[in-house]
Amino acid sequence: VIELHPITGIGEVAPGDDLAAILAEAIAGVGLVLQDGDVVVVTHKVVSKAEGALAPAEDDDAYRALVEREAVAILRRRHDLVIAETSHGFVCANAGVDRSNVTLGQAVLLPKDPDGSAHALRRRIGHITGKEVAVVITDTFGRAWRKGLSDVAIGVSGMPAIVDLRGTTDTQGRELHATEIAIADEVAAAADLAMGKATSVPAAIVRGLEFDGEGRAADLVRDPDEDLFR
Amino acid sequence: VIELHPITGIGEVAPGDDLAAILAEAIAGVGLVLQDGDVVVVTHKVVSKAEGALAPAEDDDAYRALVEREAVAILRRRHDLVIAETSHGFVCANAGVDRSNVTLGQAVLLPKDPDGSAHALRRRIGHITGKEVAVVITDTFGRAWRKGLSDVAIGVSGMPAIVDLRGTTDTQGRELHATEIAIADEVAAAADLAMGKATSVPAAIVRGLEFDGEGRAADLVRDPDEDLFR
Repeated sequence: VIELHPITGIGEVAPGDDLAAILAEAIAGVGLVLQDGDVVVVTHKVVSKAEGALAPAEDDDAYRALVEREAVAILRRRHDLVIAETSHGFVCANAGVDRSNVTLGQAVLLPKDPDGSAHALRRRIGHITGKEVAVVITDTFGRAWRKGLSDVAIGVSGMPAIVDLRGTTDTQGRELHATEIAIADEVAAAADLAMGKATSVPAAIVRGLEFDGEGRAADLVRDPDEDLFR
Repeated sequence: VIELHPITGIGEVAPGDDLAAILAEAIAGVGLVLQDGDVVVVTHKVVSKAEGALAPAEDDDAYRALVEREAVAILRRRHDLVIAETSHGFVCANAGVDRSNVTLGQAVLLPKDPDGSAHALRRRIGHITGKEVAVVITDTFGRAWRKGLSDVAIGVSGMPAIVDLRGTTDTQGRELHATEIAIADEVAAAADLAMGKATSVPAAIVRGLEFDGEGRAADLVRDPDEDLFR
């Protein structure tokens, strides 16, 4: 069985805060003891805040200018909505610049190096707790063709981002083709079920997931040259 | 806490089989007792097999013809890969026609009415077990922009497909815009973590999820006129 535990009790996070210590305290606060193999899932917003990835956005014009600055390419525009590619290669609304759940007049940006952030957070959690965990940093993205948003992985450390089942066979002995499962995105989506959205739960523990090896969220970025929809 | 339980012990499913009875038996077989509010997640492949949504595909040419027949629109082609819109409005590879985990010489199609299939399965499970469950039928889809596949909901009954948080406020009192969470897709992704891929586990129970109301997987289909990428 896999368990999805919401981590409540995490207050406002400010630039310079030790997020790993905050998480460790909150995890203890909900009565959990971290175990080797646990996946600590955290929304990028608290990571960005701890890293100081914030920018002033006192009005709509300043916000729009910030979106243009963070975008390396604009894929589509409609009214106020901009679908942009970020420096990381992610394609998302408003280049990941977000004004919700942040002090008025400010906007939160994506971490500069989310895989690096995940790696640092994992090491620091390991240092504090003595446990070998994985870390997934999430954001909430829209999708082409499907309505509604889903959480995805933008930073990964200590677990694979993609599980490649090519070369394995199905129940009939037929070789499975093109079966690369985006396991880190599925972890992000699962954790979001535990977090809820308007209730200020920015972290969850995914316990009992089996995996081998390590990857990065960068593995999930499709090369624009290989993307049939760019 | 939310729990993801794999339902093992489901053998080959054949046209005319009582899938609800098979699931109920397998659930009991893994030592679980269904509870009100459980979400029974099942891959469409066993649903399609039980419904007889199969077609002969004795060679690659026959398979390709089947894909063309099931597609109502072809969005992209590259080599053997066809990204197509199905009669349901889903956009996916090969119009959902799949030759893995099926008898050689056959292909499995998507159910004709997956929301109807989910509804019928839910009623029959309720009849057999006396429990009020929700049902999500899944398929494995690729995504634009991101590598790897993820399970999504193609049929939903007894729970919402989308949770609309518009009108609620964030921690700063700012109104949340455009926060429609594709909860049924997140349930599908979470359940896939429990199922694994090459191990023939076509069902899982998601236990402990809180939700209100009901929706359909059709709610997740973005109108082509509103889709910036068609």
